[in-house]
Amino acid sequence: MTEYRYGACLPTFASCADRYCLSGYGGGADTVEGMLDLAASVPKLSGIELVGNWHINDENMEQMKEAVRERGLQICMLTPDLWTQAKWGRGSLAAPDAETRRAAVREVQKVMDWAADVGCQYVDVWPGQDGYDYYFQSDYQAAWKWLVEGIRACADHRDDVMVLVEYKPKEPRTHIYVSHVGKTLLLINEVDRRNVSVLLDLGHASQGGENPAETIALLQRPGVRELTYVHFNDNWHAWDDDMMVGSVHQAELLEVMYWLLRTDYDGWLTLDIFPYREDGVRAASESIAWIEGMKATIERVGLEAIGELVSRADATEVSRFLRGCFLK
Amino acid sequence: MTEYRYGACLPTFASCADRYCLSGYGGGADTVEGMLDLAASVPKLSGIELVGNWHINDENMEQMKEAVRERGLQICMLTPDLWTQAKWGRGSLAAPDAETRRAAVREVQKVMDWAADVGCQYVDVWPGQDGYDYYFQSDYQAAWKWLVEGIRACADHRDDVMVLVEYKPKEPRTHIYVSHVGKTLLLINEVDRRNVSVLLDLGHASQGGENPAETIALLQRPGVRELTYVHFNDNWHAWDDDMMVGSVHQAELLEVMYWLLRTDYDGWLTLDIFPYREDGVRAASESIAWIEGMKATIERVGLEAIGELVSRADATEVSRFLRGCFLK
Amino acid sequence: MTEYRYGACLPTFASCADRYCLSGYGGGADTVEGMLDLAASVPKLSGIELVGNWHINDENMEQMKEAVRERGLQICMLTPDLWTQAKWGRGSLAAPDAETRRAAVREVQKVMDWAADVGCQYVDVWPGQDGYDYYFQSDYQAAWKWLVEGIRACADHRDDVMVLVEYKPKEPRTHIYVSHVGKTLLLINEVDRRNVSVLLDLGHASQGGENPAETIALLQRPGVRELTYVHFNDNWHAWDDDMMVGSVHQAELLEVMYWLLRTDYDGWLTLDIFPYREDGVRAASESIAWIEGMKATIERVGLEAIGELVSRADATEVSRFLRGCFLK
Amino acid sequence: MTEYRYGACLPTFASCADRYCLSGYGGGADTVEGMLDLAASVPKLSGIELVGNWHINDENMEQMKEAVRERGLQICMLTPDLWTQAKWGRGSLAAPDAETRRAAVREVQKVMDWAADVGCQYVDVWPGQDGYDYYFQSDYQAAWKWLVEGIRACADHRDDVMVLVEYKPKEPRTHIYVSHVGKTLLLINEVDRRNVSVLLDLGHASQGGENPAETIALLQRPGVRELTYVHFNDNWHAWDDDMMVGSVHQAELLEVMYWLLRTDYDGWLTLDIFPYREDGVRAASESIAWIEGMKATIERVGLEAIGELVSRADATEVSRFLRGCFLK
Repeated sequence: MTEYRYGACLPTFASCADRYCLSGYGGGADTVEGMLDLAASVPKLSGIELVGNWHINDENMEQMKEAVRERGLQICMLTPDLWTQAKWGRGSLAAPDAETRRAAVREVQKVMDWAADVGCQYVDVWPGQDGYDYYFQSDYQAAWKWLVEGIRACADHRDDVMVLVEYKPKEPRTHIYVSHVGKTLLLINEVDRRNVSVLLDLGHASQGGENPAETIALLQRPGVRELTYVHFNDNWHAWDDDMMVGSVHQAELLEVMYWLLRTDYDGWLTLDIFPYREDGVRAASESIAWIEGMKATIERVGLEAIGELVSRADATEVSRFLRGCFLK
Repeated sequence: MTEYRYGACLPTFASCADRYCLSGYGGGADTVEGMLDLAASVPKLSGIELVGNWHINDENMEQMKEAVRERGLQICMLTPDLWTQAKWGRGSLAAPDAETRRAAVREVQKVMDWAADVGCQYVDVWPGQDGYDYYFQSDYQAAWKWLVEGIRACADHRDDVMVLVEYKPKEPRTHIYVSHVGKTLLLINEVDRRNVSVLLDLGHASQGGENPAETIALLQRPGVRELTYVHFNDNWHAWDDDMMVGSVHQAELLEVMYWLLRTDYDGWLTLDIFPYREDGVRAASESIAWIEGMKATIERVGLEAIGELVSRADATEVSRFLRGCFLK
Repeated sequence: MTEYRYGACLPTFASCADRYCLSGYGGGADTVEGMLDLAASVPKLSGIELVGNWHINDENMEQMKEAVRERGLQICMLTPDLWTQAKWGRGSLAAPDAETRRAAVREVQKVMDWAADVGCQYVDVWPGQDGYDYYFQSDYQAAWKWLVEGIRACADHRDDVMVLVEYKPKEPRTHIYVSHVGKTLLLINEVDRRNVSVLLDLGHASQGGENPAETIALLQRPGVRELTYVHFNDNWHAWDDDMMVGSVHQAELLEVMYWLLRTDYDGWLTLDIFPYREDGVRAASESIAWIEGMKATIERVGLEAIGELVSRADATEVSRFLRGCFLK
Repeated sequence: MTEYRYGACLPTFASCADRYCLSGYGGGADTVEGMLDLAASVPKLSGIELVGNWHINDENMEQMKEAVRERGLQICMLTPDLWTQAKWGRGSLAAPDAETRRAAVREVQKVMDWAADVGCQYVDVWPGQDGYDYYFQSDYQAAWKWLVEGIRACADHRDDVMVLVEYKPKEPRTHIYVSHVGKTLLLINEVDRRNVSVLLDLGHASQGGENPAETIALLQRPGVRELTYVHFNDNWHAWDDDMMVGSVHQAELLEVMYWLLRTDYDGWLTLDIFPYREDGVRAASESIAWIEGMKATIERVGLEAIGELVSRADATEVSRFLRGCFLK
């Protein structure tokens, strides 16, 4: 029986805002400490993911470290701020402006130092502002080169912290350069550093038309093994709705769990949900319960039996299998 | 316990073609009689839907009537051919050419006579060729007027057969006029005939961004009750993939069954699937098994309990409810 | 030569936020007065649209009235706040909670009084929070009934101000009830009040898979004439990106202008753009220049000639026509 | 002044079928010779692309060679049949069945021999049937391995013909393995053969959410140069509608031409359109006229000036530039 470690992004326990309701819809905690209190109350949750500027900064670093520890939690990920401030609006690692690019590299490097300090293995580099909104608004070749160089400069800063690249097709830009799994693997191949790998956000994959299970299989090919961290959430396949896990696509989640188990994934399973109008503790608890339930279903049927099913590529047999899983 | 009547479109049991593989992918029957034999072997299936030109025509009408009867089946729907021949390529009821529009009305009227003759209550008017592919290619106001007039002329032909309007956002045109549920209700309100109502294809609704359960609720409002017939299938929410029921969206199907039961829908549940690469009998059997399984799940929990859940509008409670339905 | 009146939503001139960068990306004005100064500097812009809570409220009402007037502008639209505060998070006119529904009606009525006071003919009722995010999270039939009753109660408050219903398929909810043009017309038909009509946001239509020109034609049918106000913007057809007009879909804008001119639309042409990373004055100026340029193109070719083209429904002729418009 | 060579896929001049109207909508030629006659009448068209089984086969090979030559045309591409027959329905190069995989490799190798024989440099390997429709229907890791091995076996057959891999996200499968540009580059990197490169279909890219200009830039990076052949068409960004070039997205086409010119692309510009309801000769002629018109526009403004615009990444300047290009 595989035992997974569960984490959550801290905004799960905040009042989540959107562009219309900037105050957020209420219900979460107002302070980071309050958010951590809520996190600590979620069954099976042991990791917490902090975002630079939003939750952690030069001033409160030591204090946060302690606040997490005293609640029995662990920082499973530190995310350098490359997207929460106006200064990154036109890009970070691949900004047209050279000084901004350098600042972005320094930001990541600083957070890598923090990570080493708090015993966190990873930083999440999500170049969400690195893209464009309009035709003719980007020199795509220059941008790609800057991405490769920037990530390499981060990786070279220190090799005891892994730089995980997170991809997403759009939002906040209408087009983000690091958009799909293929481009991401291409990118890290070109960066060519041992401590650079991939963070897969399931909802980012499905927003971009990928079937997340296929993506996991691709990342976890023998000899490749580039899946180092996973963000869990669900959406309606058109936008990064950051909904509770299991809420929209049940069979998709089941197949995700199958491939994680089959490929011996042993990293964190971290919730990246935005419970705008929901209670964060209940939303997180439900999400973990769905993952655990799906995992139990896979384990009950058995990896071998499912492997045989998959190898037969017969859709009606799959249908019968799914009925057996989901219907009483 | 509600007992539903199940039907299927005949191509379920044929070799389904697409634009690349015009011969179809094999596996179905070559003759209409062969297709009916297959249909007759599907558990719980009693109705069969025939499409003009493809399956039924002036020559074989009597013969088909007998072929269906002797297999213990029933014709649950006759679909006038407004889309299988080149002559309808630029439109049928709303074609720019007046003679084509008249021919389309005559086609529907003829099939209404057939329907009365075989004891089938409905004809399915799907104006799938009535639309446009390019900007500036349609006089939308004229087209709408022609649709209203054409459907009215059909309805006025005889009042003992119902004219059911089926909507779809696209394919075979990139834009079909009768695209969403709202426009369809608007249209039949303007047609203003007692024997005109709506055929809902669940996949057409979801292809167009509708949540089918909401659509059913809208059509079945007290005093409106315009849902007369339902086509079942599943898809990936971007195209009319005509996949097996229950295969992609489990919770969606569960909510569909809830609203059908809650609103006392008592019409046919007809499979409109294209099992391109699957065995048609197994694909149909699986589809019905999913519907029955979902219905049993709703009945086990109870309409009243779910009604209370729904009225609370609490997503985390919904999550718990769905876990209870789908996980063991 | 038709002369159009141009308006703009005030956030055009603010620093636009999204859910990641809550401070906005900078560049706009910090105060409403500053935004009005910027608006006043845009060529051909004479109208300004204000949103309750964001720009206008019980305290600053008189002051805003004067601030607009002294800059030679006019309030072309007042938008009741049904979506900028946490209290509307679970709905406004169709909230599950009865008291919230009543508060929403009162909010609209209050803004109708303001409108009458400032000589503005319209209020924009956008029930953007009225919808749902998850399956089983809504009693759709109750919600529809509440929408009808709520809008009727608004309309009955006073008949010298028009209540314009704005539809949108999603965001901030994953599903908004008033989602497409057909449902909107259905809704206002059921509301059945002379002073209720439609506000069309072109980007909301295209986000929902509608071709905006067809939508305009449908709304402006002879005897219907329900298009009273238009919001202009562009997007990538999958999300309400609120981009500059003309930036992504040129032929689409040309066809929009054709149908506005052909159907003698004489209402406001109001920009509803979110220039997150652009200078608001330049973004608005460009948008108006595109609209004017497209209008001039239509007028140069002539409505009659285009009408003949459209009636021939020949895509290759359309292609030649568009080349003549867009290529030198 | 760059002079491009234009080609067309032969179905441009046939009667194009879809899954509803299997006879096609009429208007094209019935025989391959008739199609070639039509092709020969299109201004500036010199290349023709033939598909195995549909147009060319073991029997008519010599005859086709002569038929093309005597009309002053050239075979610019031969496409092995991996998708027009039922035998490929469950896959070709990556079929679960080993014998089918071997047959697919042999098919490609045979067509490579034909290509060498007729002086055509390329074969188009489009593994459109290699994918899946349902969850749990594929062993993704095995499939990827088979793709790599299969394409390598093709490439190793002879090195004087290039194997071009064409990607597409979906259709005829709901999920095709080789779906996006990133995965395609990853694949050919793993195949690691000098005579394997990429065929970009602009519509396949945009169907998958890519901005084709960015894709071209990525493929044409200095030191990479993997864009060897381009298919032109337009669509509504959600499906491979195979529409006339320039008909929906004008600015997109302009940016495509900019990047082709900027990166000194000198391969074929081949139309891959399905003029279902249009005259093929006029549809092809219009498409080439659009490409030429856009090219002329870029050349008039100048690569250098546009390069400066692009490097400034300013959306309002782009807007002004586009107005200058498209409005009079």
